[in-house]
Amino acid sequence: MSSAAADFLLLDPRTAPRRGITNWLAGALRSAISDGSLAPGSMLPASRTLAADLGTARGVVVAAYQRLADEGLIGGRRGAGTVVLAPPASAPQRPRRRPPARITRLPVPRLPASAGIDLSPGVPDLSAFPRAAWLRAEREALATCDAAEFGYGDPRGAEPLRVELSGWLGRTRGLRVDPDEIVVVGGVAQSLALLSRALRARGATSIAVEDPGSRGASDQLTWWGLRPVPIPVDHEGLRVDRLRRRAADTVLVTPAHQFPSGVVLSPARRRALVEWAAAGDRLIIEDDYDAEYRYDRAPVPALHASAPDRIAYTGSTSKTLAPGLRLGWLVAPPHLHDEIVSAKHAADLGSPVLPQLTLARLLACGAYDRHVRLMRTRHRARRDAVVGALRAALPDADVQGVAAGLHLLVTFPETSGVRDDVALADELRSRGVQMHPLTWHRQRPGPPGLVLGYAAQSPDRLREAAATIARVVLTRR
Amino acid sequence: MSSAAADFLLLDPRTAPRRGITNWLAGALRSAISDGSLAPGSMLPASRTLAADLGTARGVVVAAYQRLADEGLIGGRRGAGTVVLAPPASAPQRPRRRPPARITRLPVPRLPASAGIDLSPGVPDLSAFPRAAWLRAEREALATCDAAEFGYGDPRGAEPLRVELSGWLGRTRGLRVDPDEIVVVGGVAQSLALLSRALRARGATSIAVEDPGSRGASDQLTWWGLRPVPIPVDHEGLRVDRLRRRAADTVLVTPAHQFPSGVVLSPARRRALVEWAAAGDRLIIEDDYDAEYRYDRAPVPALHASAPDRIAYTGSTSKTLAPGLRLGWLVAPPHLHDEIVSAKHAADLGSPVLPQLTLARLLACGAYDRHVRLMRTRHRARRDAVVGALRAALPDADVQGVAAGLHLLVTFPETSGVRDDVALADELRSRGVQMHPLTWHRQRPGPPGLVLGYAAQSPDRLREAAATIARVVLTRR
Repeated sequence: MSSAAADFLLLDPRTAPRRGITNWLAGALRSAISDGSLAPGSMLPASRTLAADLGTARGVVVAAYQRLADEGLIGGRRGAGTVVLAPPASAPQRPRRRPPARITRLPVPRLPASAGIDLSPGVPDLSAFPRAAWLRAEREALATCDAAEFGYGDPRGAEPLRVELSGWLGRTRGLRVDPDEIVVVGGVAQSLALLSRALRARGATSIAVEDPGSRGASDQLTWWGLRPVPIPVDHEGLRVDRLRRRAADTVLVTPAHQFPSGVVLSPARRRALVEWAAAGDRLIIEDDYDAEYRYDRAPVPALHASAPDRIAYTGSTSKTLAPGLRLGWLVAPPHLHDEIVSAKHAADLGSPVLPQLTLARLLACGAYDRHVRLMRTRHRARRDAVVGALRAALPDADVQGVAAGLHLLVTFPETSGVRDDVALADELRSRGVQMHPLTWHRQRPGPPGLVLGYAAQSPDRLREAAATIARVVLTRR
Repeated sequence: MSSAAADFLLLDPRTAPRRGITNWLAGALRSAISDGSLAPGSMLPASRTLAADLGTARGVVVAAYQRLADEGLIGGRRGAGTVVLAPPASAPQRPRRRPPARITRLPVPRLPASAGIDLSPGVPDLSAFPRAAWLRAEREALATCDAAEFGYGDPRGAEPLRVELSGWLGRTRGLRVDPDEIVVVGGVAQSLALLSRALRARGATSIAVEDPGSRGASDQLTWWGLRPVPIPVDHEGLRVDRLRRRAADTVLVTPAHQFPSGVVLSPARRRALVEWAAAGDRLIIEDDYDAEYRYDRAPVPALHASAPDRIAYTGSTSKTLAPGLRLGWLVAPPHLHDEIVSAKHAADLGSPVLPQLTLARLLACGAYDRHVRLMRTRHRARRDAVVGALRAALPDADVQGVAAGLHLLVTFPETSGVRDDVALADELRSRGVQMHPLTWHRQRPGPPGLVLGYAAQSPDRLREAAATIARVVLTRR
C-alpha cells in the first residue's frame, strides 16, 4: 500500500483522477473551506510539505493554492504561510451551541469585567498571578526533570511535589504527613468528588454540612449522591451539639475560616468535633480553603493534627495562586487512603505533571511563600478599604469574618429594612455591583446578608461598591 | 487581637514566657526539627522576616538561630539562607508507606530504566517531549492571556483550545465539530470515567469491548460499575455480527488502529457498526488513541463523521506529546453533551488552564503538527528496526499491526512451542526485556502473543530485544 497521503484533510491521491490531480486538490480544499472543515484563519501546510505527503510535484500544490487564491478563498501573509480567508458566499452557517447549564443551582450571571464591580466570593486577585515566577519555575522544572516524569505516573501525583507539600503543610499548617500520604488532586472540588465516591461505595447516603456553607460544595455532594444535612453555624462555628443529633457519619467543615461567615471554630468546638468523630467510625472532611490569608489573628493550625485517623484534609492553590490551575492536595485517613488512590486512578490516572513540578519548585525556593506574603498585604489593604467604608456608611449592619480570608459577610438587623437578600443582590447587580446573597449559601432560612469577595478589586472600586450598597440599603429603610 | 504571629511553624509569641522569647523560639524550632515537621534541607525564613512576623527584634531570631547552629541542627549556605541540617540523634523515624495498589489487575512491575529494555506498549518516546517548544508556547500564552483565564473557568475547557481543536480535528481526523461541542479532559481515561458515570446514571450495567482489547480500559470501566462484555476481533476488526447478539447498548472501539492487534476496522465493518448504533438507542465510544501515527497507509478518517449523533469521540496528547500531560478531548453526541459537562464539572470543575492555553498555541502555530511529523519519522525507523529483526529471526511468528501506531503484536503458530505467553513474558523479563503478554489484554482465552511497544527505544536496543525474544522462543521449540 502506498503511504503517499496527507493527514491534512485526510487527502489520499489514490482517489484523484489520473491526470487531474491539481483539479482534485483544489476541489478538496474548496469544499473543506466551504463546509467549515477549514475555518477562516486556518493555516495551510507549506506546499513543499503537502507535495511530499501526497507524493506529487510541488508545482501541483502551488497551482492548486493559486487557484483558490484567485478565488479569494486563501491568501499568503509574508513569512506567515497561507491562510484561509473566508468561506465562499454560499457556505452554510454552523449552528452555535449555547453554554451548557452548570450542575450548581446557583444562578451566577457573570458580569463582563467592564460592566461593573464583581464581588463574587471565592476568587483571589487574578491579575496578581505570578506569571514570571511561574514561567521561571517551569523552565527550571523542564530543564532538570527526568524524561520518565512525562510518562504515566503515580496516581498520587509527582513525588517532588508531594515531598515539598509534606514539608510546607508541616511548617505552615501543623500537619505531620509523609509525602506518600498525600494525593495531588485537581482542587478541593476533586477531593470532594473522590471522597464522595469512597463514601457512597461504603453505603453512605448523606453528609453533614455547615449551614450557611458553600453552596457549590453542597451541590457537588448532591450530584455524587450524598444528601447534605444542614448543621447550624454560630459565632463559635459548627454547632457540634446539633451534629450529634443527626445520623450522618461524615461532616464537611471549614474550621480555619468558615465559609461564608468567616468564623473560626473555637477551641471547645474543635475538641467536641474530634470527640464526635472518635466516638464512632466517623469522618471529618477539613476544607482548608483559604487558611493562608489571616490578618488580625495568629494562625490557627489545621484540625488534622488532632485526629489524623479521623480527618480527610484538603486544600489547594485556588486562593493563593489561581483557581484556573486546578491544583490541590488531599490527605485521607489511613483506612481510606488506598480507596482514594484507586478513585483518583479511575477518575483520570493522575493530575498533569508539569504544573505539579512547577509548584514543587515554587515551594522549594520560597517563591510560593513570598507570593502569599505579598498577596496578604495586598488583600489586607483591600479588606481595610471595604470594611472601613461599609462600617462608616452602614453603622447598623454587622460586618463579619474580616480577620481572615478573601471575603466578608454583611448581615442586616431587622431595623435595616432589608428582608430579602436575593432581591437586594438583584438590585445591586442592576446598579453594577455583583455579590452573593447569603440565602444562596443557606439550606434553611435565616437572617438576610450579603457575601462579598474583596480580593479582586482595588480599594477605590471597593469604596465605590460600598457606597452603592449603602445607598441601596438606606433607601429601603 | 495581635496579628504578630508567623505562619512558619504557626509560631505565636503570646504563648512565649514574658522574658524568654529567644529560649521559646529556639525550643520551638528544635522540637519541629526533632519531630520531623522541619525535615533536613528545609529552609528557615530570613531572620528579618520572621522577626517582623513575630513582632520582635531581629536579634532575638538571630540568637535563636545561632543556638541551633551551635547544636549542629541548622546551618547557613552563603547566599542560600539557613537550612535544617539533620534531626537530633534521638529523632523518631517516621514510617514510610509502600506505593499503593493500582485499580488495574494488570501486574505491571516497572523495571528501572537502566535494568533492561522496557517495551511496555502505550508510551511514546518520552525523551522527545518538545520541552523548548512547550516552554515557548507557554511563555506566549502567559504573556498574552487575560487575567480572567486564571479564574474558575468553563468546565468544558479554555475556549482558545476548543477553537484550535475544532479546526485540528476537522483538518486531520475529518470531524466536523463546533468548539462548544468539545470538552477538554484529563486524557482518554477521564473520558471513559465521565461516560461511565453518564451511562450508569441511565441504568447501563454493561459495555461491549474489543477482545483482545485494552486491559486498562476494561479495568477502569469495571471500577465504574460497567461490566465489560468481550466481542471478538478478527482481521477486519470488531466482529459486529457478534456484537448484535449481545445485550450491551454501548461499545468501546479503537477503529483507526485496534489495540492491541493493530487492525484497521474495515469499511464493511464500519458501516455495520454504525448501522448497529442507529438501529437502537445505542452508543459507540471511539477511542482514537494513536491515529496520528500511520506509516504505510493513507489516514483513516475517524468514525465520528459517519454518525455524530451516535458516537462519543475521544483522543489525547498522550501518544503525540506525553501521557504525563493528562490532556485530551471528548466530543459527546448531542443527547449526552450536557450530562458530560455536568459530570466534568462535578469531577473537578474543569481541567487546568495553562497546559490548555499552551497546547492551543502549539496547534495554532503549527508546532504540534511539526512535532507529530518528526515523531512519525522517528517511530517509523524504530518500527522498521524491530519488525526487520523479528521477521528475520523468527520467520514463523506473525508480526501484526505494523502499519500504524506505537506497538505491534507478535503471535506464534502452534509449531513454535509457545503455549503460555505469560510465562514467556516472565522469562523475557528475567532476561531484561519487558513487554505485555497478549493474555493480559484478553477477556477470553486465545492464541499466545506478545504486545510490544517500540516507540521509546533506539533501533539498536530494539534489535537487541528482538534477538533476545528469538533466542528465548527458539529454545522452546
